[in-house]
Amino acid sequence: MSENQSVRAHSAELFVQPDAILCSTPETVLWGYIAANLPPALTVKSGQVVEIEALSHQGLTTNKDPEKFFGAYGIPSNEVLADAKTVFAEVKRPRGASVHILTGPIYVEEAEPGDTLEVRVLDIKFRVPYGVNNTGPGKGVLPGLLKEPSAKMIRLDLERRVALFSDDIQIPLNPFMGIMAVSPPTSLGMVSSTPPGAWGGNIDLKFCGIGCSLFLPVFNTGGQFFTGDGHAVQGDGEVDGGAIEISLKPTLQFILHKDKAIKLPRVETATDYLTTGLDVDLNVAMRIALQEAVDFLQTEKGMTAADAYALSSLAVDLGIGEAVDIVNLVYAKIPKKIFKSNPEFWYQPGG
Amino acid sequence: MSENQSVRAHSAELFVQPDAILCSTPETVLWGYIAANLPPALTVKSGQVVEIEALSHQGLTTNKDPEKFFGAYGIPSNEVLADAKTVFAEVKRPRGASVHILTGPIYVEEAEPGDTLEVRVLDIKFRVPYGVNNTGPGKGVLPGLLKEPSAKMIRLDLERRVALFSDDIQIPLNPFMGIMAVSPPTSLGMVSSTPPGAWGGNIDLKFCGIGCSLFLPVFNTGGQFFTGDGHAVQGDGEVDGGAIEISLKPTLQFILHKDKAIKLPRVETATDYLTTGLDVDLNVAMRIALQEAVDFLQTEKGMTAADAYALSSLAVDLGIGEAVDIVNLVYAKIPKKIFKSNPEFWYQPGG
Repeated sequence: MSENQSVRAHSAELFVQPDAILCSTPETVLWGYIAANLPPALTVKSGQVVEIEALSHQGLTTNKDPEKFFGAYGIPSNEVLADAKTVFAEVKRPRGASVHILTGPIYVEEAEPGDTLEVRVLDIKFRVPYGVNNTGPGKGVLPGLLKEPSAKMIRLDLERRVALFSDDIQIPLNPFMGIMAVSPPTSLGMVSSTPPGAWGGNIDLKFCGIGCSLFLPVFNTGGQFFTGDGHAVQGDGEVDGGAIEISLKPTLQFILHKDKAIKLPRVETATDYLTTGLDVDLNVAMRIALQEAVDFLQTEKGMTAADAYALSSLAVDLGIGEAVDIVNLVYAKIPKKIFKSNPEFWYQPGG
Repeated sequence: MSENQSVRAHSAELFVQPDAILCSTPETVLWGYIAANLPPALTVKSGQVVEIEALSHQGLTTNKDPEKFFGAYGIPSNEVLADAKTVFAEVKRPRGASVHILTGPIYVEEAEPGDTLEVRVLDIKFRVPYGVNNTGPGKGVLPGLLKEPSAKMIRLDLERRVALFSDDIQIPLNPFMGIMAVSPPTSLGMVSSTPPGAWGGNIDLKFCGIGCSLFLPVFNTGGQFFTGDGHAVQGDGEVDGGAIEISLKPTLQFILHKDKAIKLPRVETATDYLTTGLDVDLNVAMRIALQEAVDFLQTEKGMTAADAYALSSLAVDLGIGEAVDIVNLVYAKIPKKIFKSNPEFWYQPGG
């Protein structure tokens, strides 16, 4: 069996019939913010699987309607999503709200504050074969770099799984949802969709692709999950302010952990455990991420603080996951391969 | 041919007879600082290869002599390096100097200020099969974590290339020199070996292992190269203040680029280009590293600023290379595989 055949066989094996499909309609989307205790867009039991037809905000944030916006880049009308047109026509973005279109909330039965919600990313499909990277003066880590706005329409080769950046450059795709969130504490009221927080949100963490588990602390009854801000591929940092922004269709499984409380988002992939630190100051975000890693090694691996600190120095990598959403995200990445006693993960790539 | 055999064959192929061997003696080491325009420990021509018997400071920074220090951990006297004993007995560390033992300077003929010195890491051998990780109160990214000093003697299995951290944990080795430096500008006088700078120094960057090229800007005639601070393995950040500190023997080739000026250290590996940003504030270090990446993409790959910024957002990873040496290092890692026109690198792992 060739490697390609093996990959296909594996994908087929992973295919699961979702328990529900959640569409993006004027009734199931929020534009630029999230909030707690809204009427459920869907209610699921722990263990159930939902396919979500999510929407990118790209092409919907100017005065032009999406057909005109994308048409100017040569995208034919039939390649513009119908739900994008509907949302643009019928949903009003609150003044002062951010740009992202979020779909939800999905209530998970029996989820209560203090629980942990695990979101398994079983699959992510592309809804369109093109995306946009948008930057310019005042944007990203180097706000003074450019004198003019710059929007780049990037076609994807979905067969070969690459983004066609230029004649010389092709970038392997790694689709993930920039935003996955539970609803924030009610004390915060409406929360902009731009800065991430303990509830997750706009974490823009590229390790949240197919095969990961994202763990989020539950603040409200039902957890109340939102997602949006699809990314075809993005480097650590999202440094110019955006990824290849694109409409994606993730297939997510929701698993409730009643016996587990966490403070901040964590991720587990087939190869690594990741803890996160969130702060406007990278120096602070780094310290939080590392303290979370030390806590993880003590709690989950039974290590002393001294050994956890030493191991972090020798084998844990600190990276800047996201540096452009007001609140920055630093992650600490703990490789699984160093532990002989490591339990098997649900996702085994190529396995 | 098995994978192991292939690796061995490749190592044999890489073996080169060095043009010179530089030992660590009281005449060729500096303890805790570097300075410009010292008498050369060795002079080489561009292209020449030097094997350097470098020394770790571990075991030499207490009042105990190295035999007693290591003996307390069960290391027999014959496993303690003779040159470590000599340096401890005969070299006086200046008051206020840092801990590292540096070997050099190596003068490179015809190197002048404004040139770039490329240091190819052809090989790194282990001089001893053990190393130390040393941390405690006031040390590292979490100075308040521990109440007691903690020094951990870690044995290496050099056949299997792993550090034996505990019964459950083994860490694959990745030896590299924590310090590689040219001499700093004379305006700075004596410079502590702890904070890294434009001259390189204590960059503690784990990508500087076998098969990399480190590029350093030349500030003084001859470049004047120093190295030390061997690390058996270290994660991004070196978060508890140290790696597995160990005496290593690097084989380095010095290549002078007369037609090339750079501002800050850069690294090229078989798979990536890395730029660096150095500052006490991680937020600033990140912006510098990214600006360097954008400059690199414009200068070396002929891209516009807008395309370089967009590509950085999609495919460049920002990581925290080192966060414990007063001046922090953030790197921007540009993958080579995205460029169809990428020129071949000198080192081809497994090739």
